[in-house]
Amino acid sequence: MSYPKSALATDYYQLTMMAGYYSARINQRKACFDLFFRSNPFEGGYTLAVGLEDALKYLESLCFSNDDIAYLASLKQFDDKFLRYLETLRFTGDVDAVLEGTVVFPQEPVLRVTAPLDQCQLVESTLLNIINFQSLIATKAARICAEAGVDNVLEFGLRRAQGQDGALTASKAAYIGGCAATSNTQAGKIYGIPVKGTHAHSWVTAFDNELTAFRKFVEIFPQNSVLLIDTFDTLTSGAPNAITAGLEMKKRGERLAGVRLDSGDLMFLSVKVREALDQAGLFETKIYCSNELDEGIIHDLKNQGARIDVYGVGTRLISAFGEPALAGVYKMAACEDGSGEWKMKLKKSEGLTKATLPGFKQVWRMFNGDDEMMADLIELDDKEPDFSRGVTGTHPVVERMEKIYDGIKKTYALINPVMRSGRTVIDIPSLSATRARARAQLELLHPTSRRLLNPHIYKVSVGPHLSAITRQLRKNL
Amino acid sequence: MSYPKSALATDYYQLTMMAGYYSARINQRKACFDLFFRSNPFEGGYTLAVGLEDALKYLESLCFSNDDIAYLASLKQFDDKFLRYLETLRFTGDVDAVLEGTVVFPQEPVLRVTAPLDQCQLVESTLLNIINFQSLIATKAARICAEAGVDNVLEFGLRRAQGQDGALTASKAAYIGGCAATSNTQAGKIYGIPVKGTHAHSWVTAFDNELTAFRKFVEIFPQNSVLLIDTFDTLTSGAPNAITAGLEMKKRGERLAGVRLDSGDLMFLSVKVREALDQAGLFETKIYCSNELDEGIIHDLKNQGARIDVYGVGTRLISAFGEPALAGVYKMAACEDGSGEWKMKLKKSEGLTKATLPGFKQVWRMFNGDDEMMADLIELDDKEPDFSRGVTGTHPVVERMEKIYDGIKKTYALINPVMRSGRTVIDIPSLSATRARARAQLELLHPTSRRLLNPHIYKVSVGPHLSAITRQLRKNL
Repeated sequence: MSYPKSALATDYYQLTMMAGYYSARINQRKACFDLFFRSNPFEGGYTLAVGLEDALKYLESLCFSNDDIAYLASLKQFDDKFLRYLETLRFTGDVDAVLEGTVVFPQEPVLRVTAPLDQCQLVESTLLNIINFQSLIATKAARICAEAGVDNVLEFGLRRAQGQDGALTASKAAYIGGCAATSNTQAGKIYGIPVKGTHAHSWVTAFDNELTAFRKFVEIFPQNSVLLIDTFDTLTSGAPNAITAGLEMKKRGERLAGVRLDSGDLMFLSVKVREALDQAGLFETKIYCSNELDEGIIHDLKNQGARIDVYGVGTRLISAFGEPALAGVYKMAACEDGSGEWKMKLKKSEGLTKATLPGFKQVWRMFNGDDEMMADLIELDDKEPDFSRGVTGTHPVVERMEKIYDGIKKTYALINPVMRSGRTVIDIPSLSATRARARAQLELLHPTSRRLLNPHIYKVSVGPHLSAITRQLRKNL
Repeated sequence: MSYPKSALATDYYQLTMMAGYYSARINQRKACFDLFFRSNPFEGGYTLAVGLEDALKYLESLCFSNDDIAYLASLKQFDDKFLRYLETLRFTGDVDAVLEGTVVFPQEPVLRVTAPLDQCQLVESTLLNIINFQSLIATKAARICAEAGVDNVLEFGLRRAQGQDGALTASKAAYIGGCAATSNTQAGKIYGIPVKGTHAHSWVTAFDNELTAFRKFVEIFPQNSVLLIDTFDTLTSGAPNAITAGLEMKKRGERLAGVRLDSGDLMFLSVKVREALDQAGLFETKIYCSNELDEGIIHDLKNQGARIDVYGVGTRLISAFGEPALAGVYKMAACEDGSGEWKMKLKKSEGLTKATLPGFKQVWRMFNGDDEMMADLIELDDKEPDFSRGVTGTHPVVERMEKIYDGIKKTYALINPVMRSGRTVIDIPSLSATRARARAQLELLHPTSRRLLNPHIYKVSVGPHLSAITRQLRKNL
């Protein structure tokens, strides 16, 4: 579901370029492409890299069906020889990547493909689609959960998601990012995510009156009833009726699990409803809220002292309001020449920010101590720095900006082999392991870099060897 | 692809409510739900209703698989009798809806489901998912195409879409909204949408130099080559090299179809590149542009006199930047009581805008003349007004605001039977017919209502019978 079953899930120009490489007889030359992005989403301080599992599954299953070939033939743009070549094409390359649930930053390679040039090209669009979207939603969820408290957010987005798969895949990514449960039952079945829900206004309007509707609901679901109390009027109708039902439960030795607010001023109403519940002795009944919530609104509600226990977040999480696409790109970093020798490659483009870094690269994460990230260093793969001596880093875009990193206590390499010759070479972690990894990763990041507004910018520098070769190549162009 | 194959593609609370209705023995009572939205997306003046075909296919194929039932059983929340009931459940209801590609407005029912209460509830989440997303993207595409010219926009969004299906379904909706082609090859195959593309920067960096790359590309694709000219420097490298390749083509009796700009100031560069192409005599070579375009940027580029012929629009179309979710809702309008008599239903909620309109409703579109829309009137289904006498309309939210519509030349009903007893009763139009309908519909709307900024608000009023009953019901609550 989260990855396409057809190699046609690609931009058409990948296929015309493949045909061009084939015709120019350079399609089998090895190339190396980096997937990375140029800014954190939501003007935030970090991005959670998510999507690797689906990316690997996509690459492993990549092929053109007979139907796909017939469709391409019908376009009358490709010759028969090329189409026959596509019939047996499989992905045979290597992939190196950061593990799923890792905190990453702009300009750092997140995933690297080393494969015949035409295969590199074919897989670009879908690799970007998978990793852009899942990283985007996981990052949004992490931001929301950081404000609400990680176990207090329910993902309620199905009805507002960008398509069926936009819902299903997003439920998974939101769970990795920290949501406690989803309303999407299919996501529960497929991914094993806990499913949760309350009831809708229609439950209330289906009965003759609100109290009857509430009594019936708690009678049928005595274990975990959350009553929606804003169908008519929250304070004069919904809350008193819920309290009546809750007190009747109490007499039966049961407990009303919660009430939900879905309109009006949530700060004002939550305080008033809390007072009413407490006065009735229903101290354990929790207050759920929903209604176009996001990390900013939750932050504000908490600061004002709203009495909300659980947040149902739909639209603004599932569609990544504020920035509904992560602008990941996939750029050639090296390519074999006619004699089989690797040549480093870059592009300059108009404007500094669209320039790229050449060559096979590693990202080193440097720590001040055991559990505080200092900065990341991008360096050529085969030039591991001697960190004990300190290291000089250059800004990835502005070459004259240098920074000396000293007192490095610990480092590790972010980019690891995950696929060799088209076969996955890592054990895919469980969803809950990835979720735990994401949470632990976020803890390593200084809180100021997790701030919603104007976060502290975590430094990403280029190491001396990569810096020198980049400067040289830019000069040569 | 555009609709789910499992009845589990629903919010979990629908299933608990279904179990509740079943337990309360009211699940077979007939109910009527309206799908509508409360505001146009993007602060615009209209919405294109899209998604009906997929909605009907979803309803026709709706069922729980054995796997689905086993999953629900594993949750230990539902008793066996209810699960056995779900095994054979099919959608047996009626649907009335506006036709796909119709221009619609806030508060108007877009789709109405009349079915047993539990079926109405089950289908809510996915009906909303389908219609919200497809209408959103079609509307965004219509806005972009209105600025760029309807045949001048190519949809390039796959890599930035919200998931695989977020891309595929959106390509279809964008085509309905006016895009000329897509880059998504799978969308081309499945929906028959024209596929288009140019080449990537990697085509250039795969060769030793830019001129060699351009020469090779036009040699292989002499019919329709569009050269991307910003890999190194647009004016000093890309444009001169493209002109060299283009002049060589001209000598061979061929024609360079276009060049593409993908970075820098598109206004400045397009004018300079046009001058250079014209000076070289390459008058027929078109200028394509891409790079985070949307309707606002295109509007501005055109106003400034940019010389752009074709716009490649990706991220901001496919993910509906600005407003990535249409906030459609689905609310109960009527329900049978215990004696089988229909009762009209509404909810009030906190705040005016979340209130609903009760009963079975029709939407009448009123015209000043043959081809100019005057206003829409929502009235009870069985109370068709005598339009020849003029009609008094009430604001859907603010009851005291009235408006008298006179001189009505023509009317038609927007809501039509599309499904009866679970079977589709209309011929599903072809994609191109729906696309043509959308274009014709937009033409009927006054240009001031299609304006990007502060559009003229097209009036939607409530007819006298519906107004009276709504006022009465609100008073009774």
